[in-house]
Amino acid sequence: METDPDYYVAGVRAGNRKILAKTITLIESALPAHQELTALVMEGLLPYTGKSVRLGITGVPGVGKSTFIESLGMLLTSRGHRVAILAVDPSSARSGGSILGDKTRMEKLSVEENAFIRPSPTGGTLGGVSRKTRESMLACEAAGYDVIIIETVGVGQSETSVASMVDFFLLLILAGAGDELQGIKRGIVELADAIAVNKADNDNIEKAMVAKKAYENALHLFAPSDTGWTPQVFTCSAIQTAGIEEIWGVVCKYCEAMTESGALGRKRQEQALEWMGQLLEEGLKDWFYQMPRIRHMLPELTNAVVKGTITPTTAVKKMLDAINVN
Amino acid sequence: METDPDYYVAGVRAGNRKILAKTITLIESALPAHQELTALVMEGLLPYTGKSVRLGITGVPGVGKSTFIESLGMLLTSRGHRVAILAVDPSSARSGGSILGDKTRMEKLSVEENAFIRPSPTGGTLGGVSRKTRESMLACEAAGYDVIIIETVGVGQSETSVASMVDFFLLLILAGAGDELQGIKRGIVELADAIAVNKADNDNIEKAMVAKKAYENALHLFAPSDTGWTPQVFTCSAIQTAGIEEIWGVVCKYCEAMTESGALGRKRQEQALEWMGQLLEEGLKDWFYQMPRIRHMLPELTNAVVKGTITPTTAVKKMLDAINVN
Repeated sequence: METDPDYYVAGVRAGNRKILAKTITLIESALPAHQELTALVMEGLLPYTGKSVRLGITGVPGVGKSTFIESLGMLLTSRGHRVAILAVDPSSARSGGSILGDKTRMEKLSVEENAFIRPSPTGGTLGGVSRKTRESMLACEAAGYDVIIIETVGVGQSETSVASMVDFFLLLILAGAGDELQGIKRGIVELADAIAVNKADNDNIEKAMVAKKAYENALHLFAPSDTGWTPQVFTCSAIQTAGIEEIWGVVCKYCEAMTESGALGRKRQEQALEWMGQLLEEGLKDWFYQMPRIRHMLPELTNAVVKGTITPTTAVKKMLDAINVN
Repeated sequence: METDPDYYVAGVRAGNRKILAKTITLIESALPAHQELTALVMEGLLPYTGKSVRLGITGVPGVGKSTFIESLGMLLTSRGHRVAILAVDPSSARSGGSILGDKTRMEKLSVEENAFIRPSPTGGTLGGVSRKTRESMLACEAAGYDVIIIETVGVGQSETSVASMVDFFLLLILAGAGDELQGIKRGIVELADAIAVNKADNDNIEKAMVAKKAYENALHLFAPSDTGWTPQVFTCSAIQTAGIEEIWGVVCKYCEAMTESGALGRKRQEQALEWMGQLLEEGLKDWFYQMPRIRHMLPELTNAVVKGTITPTTAVKKMLDAINVN
C-alpha cells in the first residue's frame, strides 16, 4: 500500500529503484499528508543511513560538472561502488529546466545498474529544496548507495547549503582569461575542501597549471578550517578522464582520516543540529510573517526604517509587542 | 531631567561630550525602562544622523589597531574632522578588559578636543553588543562627529557584524613568517574593502611588499562585490605614520563614488533592513527557546537528532506543533 510507511521502507531497503524514486517523490511533496508519511518513512530508514561518502560538487555552468560526474561515476561503479547523484538547484524553475533533467548529459552513467540519477526538484525555496535533498540523500543511503554526489550550480546560497550537508565539498573551476571573470562568488572558494581546474587538456594544460598555482597561493593565505584540513588544488580533464582518480583518492583519504579521528561523526552531528536550527528559524519566521497583524504592520515599519525615521530596534519591538511575544 | 528624552537629544545635538557619554550608557543598559527611554531618544536623534563616514577596522591582537587608529585619528582631527571611535568586542568580558579600555594606548588622541573614544561594552551577546554599537554610532553622528571608526578584534562573528554596519571595512594584517599563521579566519578577507599590511617599516618593508603582492593576487581570484568595488591592498606603518594618508584617501574616494552613484544610500538602507531582520529573528528565537514546553522538549529532541533516530525535520515539526505555531 502506498500509504503504508513500510511499503517505502521495505522497498528502499531492498534496493528497489522504483520504490526509491517514489520515496523521493514523496519527500519532495508539499502536501501535509505526504509530509506526515515522509516523517514515518524517514524514521524507518534512519537506522540504515550514514554509511556513504557524501560528496558535494559545485561550479558555474559550462565548467563541465556533468562530464566530471559521469567520469567519476563510471570510475566508481567500475570499482564496485553504488553511486547516487542528486541536485540542489533552486534556480531550475526560473531557467525552465533541471540541471540534471537532461539525462543524456550523462549518457553512460544513466544506464549503469549501480548508478541512480535523480533530477533536481524544480522550484521552491532554497530551504525547501535543501530539506528535500538532505532527506533524499538519506533515502539513497538506506537503499545501499555508498557514494552520494550532490551537484549544485553556484546560485544564491545553494553552495552553502550543499556544503552543509556533505562530507567533502569540491569546487570545479576553469583556467582562462582572468579567473575573476568566472564569477566565482566571494565565499565559495572558502567552502571548498578541494578545487579542481577542469578542462586541463590539449592547449589548455599550461593555463590550468598556472591557475592551480594561483589558487594554491591564495588558499595558503587563509587559516585551515576547524577540522585542520587544508584545501588542495588539482587539475583534471573530465572529458579525457584524466586526474579523476587522483581527486577521488583525496576524497577517500580525507574521509578515512576524518572517520578515524572521529571528526567525521562530529561534523555530521553538527550539520544535523545546524540544519535543525535553520528549519526552526524558517518555521518561526514563516509563522510570524503570515500573521495578519504583522502583515498589516510590516510595510509601514519597513518604510520607516528605510526612511530612517525609526530604528530597526524600535520597529522590531513594536512587532514583537503586537503578538505578545516578548 | 535624566528621564526626559529631550535632555539627551538636546545635549547630544549641542555636542556635549558628557551627555553623549550618558546617552551611550543609556543605549547600553539592559533595563527595560532604559530601553524604552532609548527608543524615544533615538527617535529624536535619527533626523540628525547619517552624515558621517562609517569606517570599520579589524585585525588580530598585536597587529597594531590602536596605533593605526591613533595615527589616523590625529590626521583627521588635524584636518578639521571630528572623530568618534567605538569598539565591538564581545570577548571583552572573557578577557577581563575592553580592547579600548586602556585609553593610554591612544595617548594623543584621547586628549584631543575633536576625538571621542568610547570603550567597548563588556560582555553580553554579540547581537546585544552589535545593537548597542549601531545606536551609539548614530548618537555620535547626531553629536556632529563626521568620521566614526568602529574597531573589532577578529573574534567569533564580530567582523561580520561590524562589516554590516559600516560603509568601508578595513582589514589590518602583518607580513611575516607564513601569513596563514596569523589566524586570519576564513571569510574575513572577503568582507574587506581594503587590506593594509601594517608595520611596513625598517627591516620589515620588503616582507610587507611581498605580503601585499600575495594578497593582491588572492583578491584577484574573487569576483568583485555587489557594489562593483575591487578591494585594494596597501602597506603602512602606523607607528611611523606612513601610508595612513593614502588609505584615508581611498576611503574618501570610495565614499564619494558610492554617494554620487546612490550606492551608499542603498547600502545603508539594506544594512538597516538586514539589521531589522536579524533583530526579529533573535527576538523570535529568544521567545521560543524560553517557553517552558520547548525547554522541556528540546534536550530529548536534540539528543535524538544527534543520535540519528529522528530527522531534524521531525524534531522541528514536533516543537512547532507543540506551540501551535504552524
